[in-house]
Parts: sequence; structure tokens; C-alpha cells
Amino acid sequence: MARAVVLLSGGLDSSTVLYIAMDLGFKVHALSFRYGQKHTHELRAASMVAERAGVEEHLTAFLDPRLFRGSSLTGGGEVPDGRESPVGSGPIPSTYVPARNTVFLAMALAYAETIGSRDVFIGVNALDYSGYPDCRPEFIEAFQHMADLATRSAVEGGPIRIHAPLLSMTKAEIISRGLELGVDYSITHSCYSPDEAGRPCGMCDACVLRLRGFREAEVDDPASYSRGRSRDALQD
Amino acid sequence: MARAVVLLSGGLDSSTVLYIAMDLGFKVHALSFRYGQKHTHELRAASMVAERAGVEEHLTAFLDPRLFRGSSLTGGGEVPDGRESPVGSGPIPSTYVPARNTVFLAMALAYAETIGSRDVFIGVNALDYSGYPDCRPEFIEAFQHMADLATRSAVEGGPIRIHAPLLSMTKAEIISRGLELGVDYSITHSCYSPDEAGRPCGMCDACVLRLRGFREAEVDDPASYSRGRSRDALQD
Repeated sequence: MARAVVLLSGGLDSSTVLYIAMDLGFKVHALSFRYGQKHTHELRAASMVAERAGVEEHLTAFLDPRLFRGSSLTGGGEVPDGRESPVGSGPIPSTYVPARNTVFLAMALAYAETIGSRDVFIGVNALDYSGYPDCRPEFIEAFQHMADLATRSAVEGGPIRIHAPLLSMTKAEIISRGLELGVDYSITHSCYSPDEAGRPCGMCDACVLRLRGFREAEVDDPASYSRGRSRDALQD
Repeated sequence: MARAVVLLSGGLDSSTVLYIAMDLGFKVHALSFRYGQKHTHELRAASMVAERAGVEEHLTAFLDPRLFRGSSLTGGGEVPDGRESPVGSGPIPSTYVPARNTVFLAMALAYAETIGSRDVFIGVNALDYSGYPDCRPEFIEAFQHMADLATRSAVEGGPIRIHAPLLSMTKAEIISRGLELGVDYSITHSCYSPDEAGRPCGMCDACVLRLRGFREAEVDDPASYSRGRSRDALQD
């Protein structure tokens, strides 16, 4: 049984990817990061998802937060209201974290070599997304090309493949696929700006994308939103 | 005065690169990593080099050592004797650390975006080197291409440039250039397998390359080798 590294934030997308990797028959090593994000509730969600899915191993690696400043997710100002402009339509939002997916994939590459895996999974998505540059197909292709030159595995004939199975799926398709595979979305956490109890705000980019996805999939989102705000996001 | 991130291990190559970046007029932010390497003496050397050079900032970032196992530098077996076969001529040596330069450059990219820098320096060298895949020019090119797609800076018109000024220099040329720029090689640390006092062994790949470089540059290596073993490495 081949091993795969799955990047797991604890959100809807990466949790679905984890189940996709398991459905493909991989023994999953899930990898999460503590990089100074304010919404650390996602890390608790990641642990719950990994445990529920029965992964082989789940590591939460620390990354020096001094390298990831300047994002509204890591303390640089307020997380914007995702309802104000169509998500993904404008400039790169303030929730962009410097080189985050590059760093996450690089760490996953190291971990894959360490455990003898040739498969890395990431839940990036280029349709219903926030407009981050490191979620685009051309970024994933370029990372793959670089990885093919970077590692001992590649040079010795066993390159590590980067899988991005959600790349061209809509959020609704992702949710439908996840439900088929048994993902429990009530324990996943997507919100950038939860309240103290960890309940999602229903207003940030991540919540707006998630809620729209559930609506389009014609399924109720099982997450409990704070102060019922989720309804605001759904009004249009 | 533009800022640059310089990856600084504390060895001969990266210390020289730091002085090259300063000579080019950059305000230097040096970045070192604690990733589980056994030879932590290099981190002390990095701090000394950074302080001596008068950099703007020097960060030593922690990287989860669980992701970098399986190298003789991180605890997986003995560091090999570099005198046994010509360095760089055989297969990738056991001192290869999984995806190390990919991870280091990814972190440098994040740091550069964080501090508003568009320049990252790395001391890779493709002539007198140990045969690591992630020291080759094609790897650096591929990383640059990937970085051009990955970051907000690149999308908004200010891509971050990866500089590898030592790429096609011999070790002797690097040393001569460093001496011109005032590098104090007595405080740099290259050895993979120092004794308890931190003195280099004179026998590992890194020592063999360094000693050969000083010999070819016709300069004495100011480092104090343990038990005078450096002379063994020089006999041929």
C-alpha cells in the first residue's frame, strides 16, 4: 500500500482531498502547519478530520511566523468581508499569505522523501477560490517541474507527483464528491475569522465560498455559524 | 537601499554570498535554519558571520525535523568519509537532506515578500559540490519559474529574483572573491562532522571540498581542524 502526503488545513477542500487520497488506496500521512494564522481553530479541525478518517499519521509542523507577516490572516489588519465584492474577481485579497503554498508543498516534498512516498496531495482549486496566485494550475505545473529536478527520488527514477484533484471542480462538486466519500463537514473548519468558540463568521471569503458551495450543491452546511450570520451571506 | 534575503548556513559558500550581496549594495536579511542537523555548530558560525558583517537582521528559523529524516546529516547513519571517492563523482551521497534547498528557498521567498524584498541569494555551486540535485543550475531556473507564478509580488509586477552568484565558480574562485570582500573564513563552519569543541574533522565531503579550495586558491585555511586531520585530506 503506497503512502501519500496530504496537505490538510482542516477546511472543506483539504478534508475532501484526504478522503479522495484514501479512496485511491493510499496510506495517508496528513500534514498541517502552525504558521501564525489567527484562525487556529482550523488545526483542531484538521486533527479531528485526520482522526476520523483513520490516517496513518498526522503531523502539525511549526513554521516560523516571522516569515509570514503582512497578511490579514497572520495579524496584519482585519480579515475583509467576503460579501462586499464577488470573491476571486478583484486584486489578490489581504488574506494572501506570502508564498504559503510554495512553502507547504516544499515541506510536503521533504516529508514525502522522508517516508518513501511518491505522491503529494493538495486541495487547491482554481474555480471557486479567492484569487491567490499559488492556487492556479500553472503554479502547480511549475512546482511539479521544479520538484522533478529537486529531489533524490526524482534523480533516481521515482519522481514525486503533485496531485491537485480539486483544481477544476466547483465548490458544489467538491462537496458532492466529499459527501459520497463520507466526509463529515460538520467537523471541518473553513472560516478565517471565527468567534471565540470557534464558530465560523459566515462573512469572510472562506465562509462565503463555502456557503455558496453548499447552496449550489443543494445541501445544508452542517457547521454552526455564529449569530446566524450565515444567512446574510446567502442573501442575494 | 533595497533589501535582500540571504540564505546563510554559516559555511564558506553562503558567508561569501552574504558579502557579495552587501557589496552589491543590499541591506541584508540573513536567514538560517535549525532543521535537525547534527552539526549545529554551523548555526553559531552563521550568527558570528552575520554579526561581523553587520547585517540588518538575522533570523534562525526552526523547521520540524520530523520532515527531514533519512539523511546522515540528520541522524540517519554515519557521515561518510569524503576522501574515499572524488566528491561529486558518484551517486547522491547520504548527506543529501530531503528537498532541503526547495524548502530553504520557499521560506526565503515568503520572508522576501514579508519584508518587501525582491532579491533572494543562495550559495549553491555546481562545480566543487557534493552532487546534490538541488544545487544544479536547472533546479535554480525551475525554482525561479515557479516563484514567478507563486507570489503576489510577481503577479503585481515585481517578481522576486533568485541569485546564485557562485553557481559556476570553483571553490578556489569563491575563496579568492571572499577574501577580496573581507570574509573572515576563520569563523565560518563547513564541516558535517565536527568534534565536541566544534572543530572540523577534515575528512567529510564538506571539509574535503573546502580544503581543496584553499589549496587551489593558494591560501591557508584559517580553521582549526581537530587532531590535524586536515593534512590527511590534502595528501594525494
